[in-house]
Amino acid sequence: MLTFESDYTEGAHEKVLQRLFETNMEKLSGYGNDKYCTEAKEKIKTLCQCPSADIYFLVGGTQTNQTVIDAVLQQYEGVIAATSGHVSVHEAGAIEFTGHKVLEIPHAHGKLQADTLLNYIKTFYADENHEHMVFPGMVYISHPTEYGTLYSLKELQSISQICSKYDLPLYLDGARLGYGLMSKNTDVTLPDIAKLCDAFYIGGTKVGALCGEAVMFTHNNTPKHFMTIVKQHGALLAKGRLLGIQFDTLFADGLYFKISRHAIEMAEILKNAFEEKGYTFYLNSPTNQIFIVLENSKMNELQEQISFSFWEKADENHTVVRFATSWATKKEDVDALVSLL
Amino acid sequence: MLTFESDYTEGAHEKVLQRLFETNMEKLSGYGNDKYCTEAKEKIKTLCQCPSADIYFLVGGTQTNQTVIDAVLQQYEGVIAATSGHVSVHEAGAIEFTGHKVLEIPHAHGKLQADTLLNYIKTFYADENHEHMVFPGMVYISHPTEYGTLYSLKELQSISQICSKYDLPLYLDGARLGYGLMSKNTDVTLPDIAKLCDAFYIGGTKVGALCGEAVMFTHNNTPKHFMTIVKQHGALLAKGRLLGIQFDTLFADGLYFKISRHAIEMAEILKNAFEEKGYTFYLNSPTNQIFIVLENSKMNELQEQISFSFWEKADENHTVVRFATSWATKKEDVDALVSLL
Amino acid sequence: MLTFESDYTEGAHEKVLQRLFETNMEKLSGYGNDKYCTEAKEKIKTLCQCPSADIYFLVGGTQTNQTVIDAVLQQYEGVIAATSGHVSVHEAGAIEFTGHKVLEIPHAHGKLQADTLLNYIKTFYADENHEHMVFPGMVYISHPTEYGTLYSLKELQSISQICSKYDLPLYLDGARLGYGLMSKNTDVTLPDIAKLCDAFYIGGTKVGALCGEAVMFTHNNTPKHFMTIVKQHGALLAKGRLLGIQFDTLFADGLYFKISRHAIEMAEILKNAFEEKGYTFYLNSPTNQIFIVLENSKMNELQEQISFSFWEKADENHTVVRFATSWATKKEDVDALVSLL
Amino acid sequence: MLTFESDYTEGAHEKVLQRLFETNMEKLSGYGNDKYCTEAKEKIKTLCQCPSADIYFLVGGTQTNQTVIDAVLQQYEGVIAATSGHVSVHEAGAIEFTGHKVLEIPHAHGKLQADTLLNYIKTFYADENHEHMVFPGMVYISHPTEYGTLYSLKELQSISQICSKYDLPLYLDGARLGYGLMSKNTDVTLPDIAKLCDAFYIGGTKVGALCGEAVMFTHNNTPKHFMTIVKQHGALLAKGRLLGIQFDTLFADGLYFKISRHAIEMAEILKNAFEEKGYTFYLNSPTNQIFIVLENSKMNELQEQISFSFWEKADENHTVVRFATSWATKKEDVDALVSLL
Repeated sequence: MLTFESDYTEGAHEKVLQRLFETNMEKLSGYGNDKYCTEAKEKIKTLCQCPSADIYFLVGGTQTNQTVIDAVLQQYEGVIAATSGHVSVHEAGAIEFTGHKVLEIPHAHGKLQADTLLNYIKTFYADENHEHMVFPGMVYISHPTEYGTLYSLKELQSISQICSKYDLPLYLDGARLGYGLMSKNTDVTLPDIAKLCDAFYIGGTKVGALCGEAVMFTHNNTPKHFMTIVKQHGALLAKGRLLGIQFDTLFADGLYFKISRHAIEMAEILKNAFEEKGYTFYLNSPTNQIFIVLENSKMNELQEQISFSFWEKADENHTVVRFATSWATKKEDVDALVSLL
Repeated sequence: MLTFESDYTEGAHEKVLQRLFETNMEKLSGYGNDKYCTEAKEKIKTLCQCPSADIYFLVGGTQTNQTVIDAVLQQYEGVIAATSGHVSVHEAGAIEFTGHKVLEIPHAHGKLQADTLLNYIKTFYADENHEHMVFPGMVYISHPTEYGTLYSLKELQSISQICSKYDLPLYLDGARLGYGLMSKNTDVTLPDIAKLCDAFYIGGTKVGALCGEAVMFTHNNTPKHFMTIVKQHGALLAKGRLLGIQFDTLFADGLYFKISRHAIEMAEILKNAFEEKGYTFYLNSPTNQIFIVLENSKMNELQEQISFSFWEKADENHTVVRFATSWATKKEDVDALVSLL
Repeated sequence: MLTFESDYTEGAHEKVLQRLFETNMEKLSGYGNDKYCTEAKEKIKTLCQCPSADIYFLVGGTQTNQTVIDAVLQQYEGVIAATSGHVSVHEAGAIEFTGHKVLEIPHAHGKLQADTLLNYIKTFYADENHEHMVFPGMVYISHPTEYGTLYSLKELQSISQICSKYDLPLYLDGARLGYGLMSKNTDVTLPDIAKLCDAFYIGGTKVGALCGEAVMFTHNNTPKHFMTIVKQHGALLAKGRLLGIQFDTLFADGLYFKISRHAIEMAEILKNAFEEKGYTFYLNSPTNQIFIVLENSKMNELQEQISFSFWEKADENHTVVRFATSWATKKEDVDALVSLL
Repeated sequence: MLTFESDYTEGAHEKVLQRLFETNMEKLSGYGNDKYCTEAKEKIKTLCQCPSADIYFLVGGTQTNQTVIDAVLQQYEGVIAATSGHVSVHEAGAIEFTGHKVLEIPHAHGKLQADTLLNYIKTFYADENHEHMVFPGMVYISHPTEYGTLYSLKELQSISQICSKYDLPLYLDGARLGYGLMSKNTDVTLPDIAKLCDAFYIGGTKVGALCGEAVMFTHNNTPKHFMTIVKQHGALLAKGRLLGIQFDTLFADGLYFKISRHAIEMAEILKNAFEEKGYTFYLNSPTNQIFIVLENSKMNELQEQISFSFWEKADENHTVVRFATSWATKKEDVDALVSLL
């Protein structure tokens, strides 16, 4: 069985595991107060050209979104997100669990549109009193989005400008950030993101780590007592070294980018094959996720030898499915898949 | 510097890391739906003589307490705990964050007393209406307690009986369970705990794992839709394998018990040395934590060569400190510490 | 200035106040345990032909929605509502505050459509696993809706059947229920509602009371310890008599229905006048709220002598506004308004 | 049956009801934006000698405590209160429901002691890191306390100074404030309270109103978007006039103080009678609540003709009971009670 089901089916990059081994018996302080966490943070700040940033390591994506959003919002505020956003749909209500509404607005292939956002925000400053409504307190975007799409630099700048104008922190969910940065079709860099966002996270779980996400508050804007808030959310890892060592390894010698690029290359081969063989793309994703519309009979046939993800029903006879590559995808598996198409 | 500060200063037992390496590139389903999680659960159920139990792996202790307690309680209920309980003091309000009051009652060296518990519960069934009060909905104990003390089997049975009588689930926090089970001064076994508690967790983080706690619901009493609740709390690990493989290794060939026993043996040597050299014990702990009352001048002197934990002020001139051993403590470090006393 | 701004601009019906006066110095138990609450409940149960119902009196609408929805839902569940629902838009996130997502689906003039509802629910029972999503746990409708529209009996039956089939409690927000029941264009009666809904409330605040809503759980399905939950939400009134006496008066001798019918009659006169004079209706509302599309210049002109509510912008030059009648609307004011149109 | 069970067994003072009648058909804006609310606020600000204060009217005491405490606290903070405090015991966990821990500390007859408070707070600034604990974010006191006792001006000043020093807002629950201010044994005035507290409320429900509490933030320190927070808690009354008119009446011509003094006078007569007849006082309360220790047989005998409150068991044979007077207590009932003692 060939597996293209998701980008988290393997463990960690070999170098990451190796480093955990080498440092294993060192006695280190808990809760992120160890030298590896410190060194990893320095490396990331340098890469982001953001020396004054604060960085924290959390374990998973939903946990990170929940903790950051709850920490940043005032209690009467909600977070604006696309109706397709991970926080809107696939986090089991983790945001609402903390008392905040997700203010869902329409999107284009997973991306918030600047004009949609602006019109939504404007209603809170126009016409009439809105004190009976949930006030927008921050904006959530994902990059790549849940559909694998990417914001252009210009789109990101427009959204960032709107957020600045209305004093709404912009938060970017980078669960698959490596795959976004290494896409051939992007003009957005890590320093751009650090400059345009108030907070974002660099995903580790889906890009070479066993677990772990690196949250950055970009300009001395870490919520007060953030570590206590992390603890209060049950999100503080005792052995913070597990996260620090992984990120320190991923951000040494460009490993994070190298392995991300590999996933993109594997996806490119696959996409070309799908195209050549006349498959229908659900949308054009420039990252590591490929969305294909299959006839149900074809889907059933392929499922006998390949595992991929159900995405949604297209119509009675067709289904949208997802193929994902990752840092761990082997060329031979891609070739094998291509030969089956 | 000799480090006896806590039982989570090293990484994981070598065999655990080795196993992560060996299985690293296997393609496995996420969220705990992998064969290693399944196998680890089987091993634990067998050891607990509790074939009908449900087991879930979570990442950390506070997270586990928060998720389980919130899942078990009705919304109008609180959890009874000792005033010294981890949930009462050192979880940054993680329980209250989920809307539930911790109903704190007095303790003896960290242990709930059956009669104190019974008297407290009885007030809710006697005299007068209590519909303006938080109703007790479960009982939390830790074993070993935060003071390293242990319940005797008889004590545990008494508490369990009271809980049964009043239909209050009994939940045991086993963050350091291995050290409790391997103490020379215990008559409580793992099957006893599985039999007497409605839910409990076996701690991994402090006993040989990088992270991870194994929660057991002992008698088909898992809260409905528990996985969704875990996700909602931001506590669902994408690569569940990280937890499954660790527990599968720890519970193969008695490794968990062997390494726990080692910590106890190291603690015994230390305790004997403290006793011989006339140190004052704050209390008698039969597990891996030793609480000593030091004159402040002596404390400052020792701190130059040994790191240990501040516990609390005893009086103006004395301080209670904690020395902890663990699965990773080296005999040579214990000897070195003894020679410095 | 003529005021048609809302249906809560006056105090209470004279008979309600009179009764508060007469009973004022009687010594009564608090928290709803008084004879007037009991008598009011009996009257309402009789009118609903629902002798086994449980009734509770709460103070306001948002409070009632928040308390009932939070009490009925399991913690991992959300409430389905129209995107235009009061709980979706105008309660400042009171539902999310209790940890639950409002699962918003499209509507027609404020009404949930049975097929939209069914399709939405079905996705949770089809295709794939949904344990990472908020599970629907109940359905919220308002009747009259926020647009003054009404469900037909057949529509209500369809929704009720879907809810029954999927075991989702159906909850009806009757903030303006009197105006719905007394509409000339309805075939829905109070016993119908009691039969088809699992819970609903009869609004007092907008129909003759100073404050107060009567919540009914229709078939021995009151959430366990509901009074404690009410208290926990800060919603338990010490002098429950204030609510009991008002409802006992409103439901004696058909007063509630009589004063509701008056509001409808006043609205009918107004609607006829708007129609005759060629005004554009935003939609056809059969109850006490009239939605008119005005040219902005006309709106400004009318505002000099009449106060009404801004509803929403129609386009650059037009605005949707609302005129509301109530139990307290005087015929002479309606005539004066008509003469100004 | 003579009723001395509580201070909320009657409706409202006659003048309050009369005023509701007189203003009943005036058309007023909702949600507290009416002239009566404005006038009532002006009167209270003048009496408090606190012209820059902000005042809000809420419906009940638990609601007020819940809303104010949740609005003032940061999410990682808790509220310090006596173990006997209303928020600690008798609000069904309404504070924890909003995610905040009540940090309970010992008391003397219901009063926080300055040195106990100081020592508790100091631990958060000394010794060691407390980022795993709930940080104290405000201090809650009640005056009169739940035991009817009163702080002296000096005691209140001491607590206020500690709060100022550690930047902890001091909040005073004045559910029975009138009875405290009119006690013969107090040197604390309304302006003292406004000066020494950051927020407090003047209770209406127990002092002449049908419902209603007036919250004051004393120095431009109203939490941002407080009305939205009130709405979010389900605590915003549509017909705010109900509260404004009541408080405007109670604070015209000293009515609030006059009727409070009456309750005190009635209590004084009762206390003298208890003393003369050799009854045992549980404690010395200078306000409208009298706590007596009765032999159980005597209690049963008295209960045949008098209703009073069970407070707590004293021992196997004795019970603490409470007799309460109020603004509505009739001299003839007091005389009748005295004759039965």
